[in-house]
Amino acid sequence: MAGEIPYKIYLDEKDIPASWYNMRADMKNKPAPLLNPGTGQPMTAAELSGVFCDELVKQELNETDAYIAIPQDIRDFYKMYRPSPLVRAYCLEKKLDTPAKIYYKFEGNNTSGSHKLNSAIAQAYYAKKQGLKGVTTETGAGQWGTALSMACAYFDLDCKVFMVKVSYEQKPFRREVMRTYGASVTPSPSETTEVGRKILAAHPGTTGSLGCAISEAVEVATHNEGYRYVLGSVLNQVLLHQSVIGLEAKAALDKYGVKPDMIIGCAGGGSNLGGLIAPFMGEKLRGEADYRIIAVEPASCPSFTRGKYAYDFCDTGMICPLAKMYTLGSDFIPAPNHAGGLRFHGMSTTLSQLYHDGFMEARTVKQTDVFEAAEYFARIEGILPAPESSHAICAAIDEAKKCKETGEEKTILFGLTGTGYFDLVAYEKYNNGEMDDYIPTDAELAESIAKLPRI
Amino acid sequence: MAGEIPYKIYLDEKDIPASWYNMRADMKNKPAPLLNPGTGQPMTAAELSGVFCDELVKQELNETDAYIAIPQDIRDFYKMYRPSPLVRAYCLEKKLDTPAKIYYKFEGNNTSGSHKLNSAIAQAYYAKKQGLKGVTTETGAGQWGTALSMACAYFDLDCKVFMVKVSYEQKPFRREVMRTYGASVTPSPSETTEVGRKILAAHPGTTGSLGCAISEAVEVATHNEGYRYVLGSVLNQVLLHQSVIGLEAKAALDKYGVKPDMIIGCAGGGSNLGGLIAPFMGEKLRGEADYRIIAVEPASCPSFTRGKYAYDFCDTGMICPLAKMYTLGSDFIPAPNHAGGLRFHGMSTTLSQLYHDGFMEARTVKQTDVFEAAEYFARIEGILPAPESSHAICAAIDEAKKCKETGEEKTILFGLTGTGYFDLVAYEKYNNGEMDDYIPTDAELAESIAKLPRI
Repeated sequence: MAGEIPYKIYLDEKDIPASWYNMRADMKNKPAPLLNPGTGQPMTAAELSGVFCDELVKQELNETDAYIAIPQDIRDFYKMYRPSPLVRAYCLEKKLDTPAKIYYKFEGNNTSGSHKLNSAIAQAYYAKKQGLKGVTTETGAGQWGTALSMACAYFDLDCKVFMVKVSYEQKPFRREVMRTYGASVTPSPSETTEVGRKILAAHPGTTGSLGCAISEAVEVATHNEGYRYVLGSVLNQVLLHQSVIGLEAKAALDKYGVKPDMIIGCAGGGSNLGGLIAPFMGEKLRGEADYRIIAVEPASCPSFTRGKYAYDFCDTGMICPLAKMYTLGSDFIPAPNHAGGLRFHGMSTTLSQLYHDGFMEARTVKQTDVFEAAEYFARIEGILPAPESSHAICAAIDEAKKCKETGEEKTILFGLTGTGYFDLVAYEKYNNGEMDDYIPTDAELAESIAKLPRI
Repeated sequence: MAGEIPYKIYLDEKDIPASWYNMRADMKNKPAPLLNPGTGQPMTAAELSGVFCDELVKQELNETDAYIAIPQDIRDFYKMYRPSPLVRAYCLEKKLDTPAKIYYKFEGNNTSGSHKLNSAIAQAYYAKKQGLKGVTTETGAGQWGTALSMACAYFDLDCKVFMVKVSYEQKPFRREVMRTYGASVTPSPSETTEVGRKILAAHPGTTGSLGCAISEAVEVATHNEGYRYVLGSVLNQVLLHQSVIGLEAKAALDKYGVKPDMIIGCAGGGSNLGGLIAPFMGEKLRGEADYRIIAVEPASCPSFTRGKYAYDFCDTGMICPLAKMYTLGSDFIPAPNHAGGLRFHGMSTTLSQLYHDGFMEARTVKQTDVFEAAEYFARIEGILPAPESSHAICAAIDEAKKCKETGEEKTILFGLTGTGYFDLVAYEKYNNGEMDDYIPTDAELAESIAKLPRI
């Protein structure tokens, strides 16, 4: 069914993928295993299942099955907001006066406002299936916490969210959405956990960090009968669930016989990028097709481009397993003026291996350039993008401009992961000319990387 | 193409209506004309065109053409977010265990977050076509101001928004979205207009009102070369543009051979209700079909159900033309604890005539019931609704519950006009149990209605 390409390509409900695609099955060099920080040995399923749901542990460790069927209950939930639109950015192309053809997969058309819901509903489903009472998690900016709250409301699961204190105070609306979906939201560090009390005693008045919130969430999950911990990025299971993004994008392009030349995604922990590129990377791994795949990260938190490929802790509390990844060191915290999200010090182990093996490239963009691209895009395409997504927009616009210079008619696909409705404090800063860029010095990075665990 | 009905019925881009539908052409009793407050005579096109764009004046006065072609530039913009989905509320039906079949037309899937964009882009287009520099308007909650800012950014028009001061201060994010789209946003009353200075002198420290913001916007439009004033509700032209909602909803239902028994919409000034019901009302007016049509208004601002059908001012400043409508008096202001939107004291003249002639019914719902329905809906259908839209949700749930009692398999269509991302202060109040209801007493209403102009 080729023909004139509409502004929005919608697939039918029946085109929602029946299976997730697991890139690891097609990788010759598998990602390095998670290690037990105590023993230095690979984490076993038994060890992981104290923290994570059983079925999710299986998915985490599954390196052989390329396709894993999506349970019907999850597909039914997906029907409420999927297939998500693949948009042909006609207005942007016209404004840029570029011969490039630009497409974006828009994942912001659901109340959580981002792609995070794709994995949240899967994780909530498996928790429910296991007969659990509830799940715990941490959230920073709040996209993941919101998505998980929605998913738990749907399956009638208790949802305990530890929200980094500074975000809890600065983003009351995010907190309120989660409460509206029935979640309990605790500012972290809190007096409700041992680790929280310890941190508060050592650092009274601290505004918290993602690492601390993770530690509290894990403690509550492991100390309470019927609870497990869930996570919105980095893990293999999350990339697996997020593969619906790429599978749908590819199906929509295939419908019109379009093959992208390059695929661009923002990268923090890798949940969106890993999902968007999945089926394309699969073709590349199997030698069936070639694509340029570009990860875009903030200049203020440049894991791929300036990090070290090594084993590191996923959290600052150092209670989580060790993962081999491109990392800036679990001690690294992006500058406080960084408002663009994607603040994680490390990166998905799967994406790290793929990058290490040369299957993708990476670049950084500066914060002010990101917001300039965001505002430009909002005015032309009518969608106010999340700062995270705007990293990909920024790179896509750069590539489209290059096409204008060279006259090449490249086809660009990028991931628009979410909307910026809850990021208006950052937009205000930009509108008022108060936003600046901070790029860590080599010395700073060397210092935090020097503290990597010796494995 | 009947068959199993999907969760979301999407039409194709080519199914975006080619024409707006003008209900007035099929009304035997036309709505009463706007009157010049000075002379008491019907406003002429010449008089109106000092305030409004020429083409919009023609649309305002057109009572004969049933269909008015939508210019291609507007249809191109519509393609970025239309056709909007018609959703079958399977999850809600299941949770309510009702034999009713519930559909909603979701207009929140665009960055303005509501249906207001449908008319904003049309009004901006005609302003641009007339060669104007820009437009002025007022905004309260901010939906209309946001939509107009987006539309003006698209057509590169200047956009001056007067935002009720209390909203300007309490809704900084709404303000920031408008600024991101390049609009100037002034808290009203302001020192920038004569009427603003007068009001500030008389009431220092006032937090403003919609009526005052209208007066300032009209003053700026009429005192500046190349500017006109635009309005997001009440006017006939607005209902005309909003008919795309109903036309698409009807086309989507027709695709599956579904005929609604009742159509439910929230009603403030009438922009959404008038648009949603348009083609159905057309059939009813022409005697081709019958539908129950239900307007839902807040108990705290009950224009249809407790107002008087009479000529009144549209603004508190009494500079706008007089309109014959169901009104509580231009002096009436809903209680400050009312967070549910739909605060206008009057009602579209077209809808007022239709209601007066028995073509539709009306009911009120209490604020706490509205938020209870909103939260219930959010958790089940995964969309956080705007408080305004939640009035319709509340009535739809009530009707579905009645069906459960009687066993009737009624088909319900309601309008979900927008999302509640910028209404989380109200949700917080509800979550904290701090929301209450205020219903004006008969004496209060009698007092403001007694002040209606004597025409």
